[in-house]
Amino acid sequence: MHFVKSIDIETEGFSDVIDVTERATEAVASSGVVNGLLTLFVPGSTAAVTTIEFEPGVVADLKEAIERVAPEGLRYSHDARWGDGNGFSHVRAAFMKPSLTVPIVDRALTLGTWQQLVLIDFDNRPRKRALLLQVIGVA
Amino acid sequence: MHFVKSIDIETEGFSDVIDVTERATEAVASSGVVNGLLTLFVPGSTAAVTTIEFEPGVVADLKEAIERVAPEGLRYSHDARWGDGNGFSHVRAAFMKPSLTVPIVDRALTLGTWQQLVLIDFDNRPRKRALLLQVIGVA
Amino acid sequence: MHFVKSIDIETEGFSDVIDVTERATEAVASSGVVNGLLTLFVPGSTAAVTTIEFEPGVVADLKEAIERVAPEGLRYSHDARWGDGNGFSHVRAAFMKPSLTVPIVDRALTLGTWQQLVLIDFDNRPRKRALLLQVIGVA
Repeated sequence: MHFVKSIDIETEGFSDVIDVTERATEAVASSGVVNGLLTLFVPGSTAAVTTIEFEPGVVADLKEAIERVAPEGLRYSHDARWGDGNGFSHVRAAFMKPSLTVPIVDRALTLGTWQQLVLIDFDNRPRKRALLLQVIGVA
Repeated sequence: MHFVKSIDIETEGFSDVIDVTERATEAVASSGVVNGLLTLFVPGSTAAVTTIEFEPGVVADLKEAIERVAPEGLRYSHDARWGDGNGFSHVRAAFMKPSLTVPIVDRALTLGTWQQLVLIDFDNRPRKRALLLQVIGVA
Repeated sequence: MHFVKSIDIETEGFSDVIDVTERATEAVASSGVVNGLLTLFVPGSTAAVTTIEFEPGVVADLKEAIERVAPEGLRYSHDARWGDGNGFSHVRAAFMKPSLTVPIVDRALTLGTWQQLVLIDFDNRPRKRALLLQVIGVA
């Protein structure tokens, strides 16, 4: 079986972290799949997906770690060539990757209680994102 | 076809790296799947999965790199709010992600000779973890 | 349905970034799969896969971020034990992981326009790599 849904997400950019757990759970329910895989995938080269305990403290802490890996204030070759000013966004996204797969067992995502699915938008401006929620598996 | 097994793993926390290759290989054999995907997924927001050459040197080197990205001794907002003291664990886990997919071809995982599947427990105490080994594919 | 192809890639090592989007697209077309998943997987413990806008600026920027996380010039325990001199390569690969899954919808990969699939070879010498392109799904 195959089911796919694209959801629209408005972000503030600058490592904005968006909880998509509820919409992902709804997509799994809509799919009719009992056992299989949910893949979250964000088209574009300045965003990523992962899991986190979605509370403001950890979210702020994650942003600081990301800043250590690819600081916003550095000189980026991408910016020198293209003038977008979002070289740091591209590097952050390549590091954290646009894809995550989560098992579906007995119609449910196998997330922990304090583990939420999140989109992170690394771009340097507000964006309207399309996030793909794809379900494959058996009924 | 679908097969899933949850295995129990006792860890020491603090970036303890546990080789799960043998148990994953057994799960693939048990599944009866000839060609498909193994997904390793750890429920919870303070652990991750990846591959590494599992020898003590590289394992120690990886822990040092993780410490550079999210040092244990920093002040974390998560700890200020919740008092768990494991803000660094959450950040490390969000960075390295709880999921990994590995192709199964002709009943075998496509790992390299020196490439092992590992769980990393980032929490700040010993934990008993459940790691999901899910196989989907065709017989 | 299941389809798998191994492609050979010659790299320069030292975080050489290779665009494999075209070959991945061809593999999807060859598979006959209409809706499903492409998994890219590199066997070995010194390489990784991700997506990036494949232009020289961002590629150089990413290499600098990788150097911040696992600098080449540090002392690595792996090297002290094994003398390979590629401890930094192993750490970088464990961080960035050897696997990526991308949805296939209506016979197409769901990549963004400026989002390319890349292999990164972290080893400390030129390598000939085999990259697995595996497609599962429905016709």
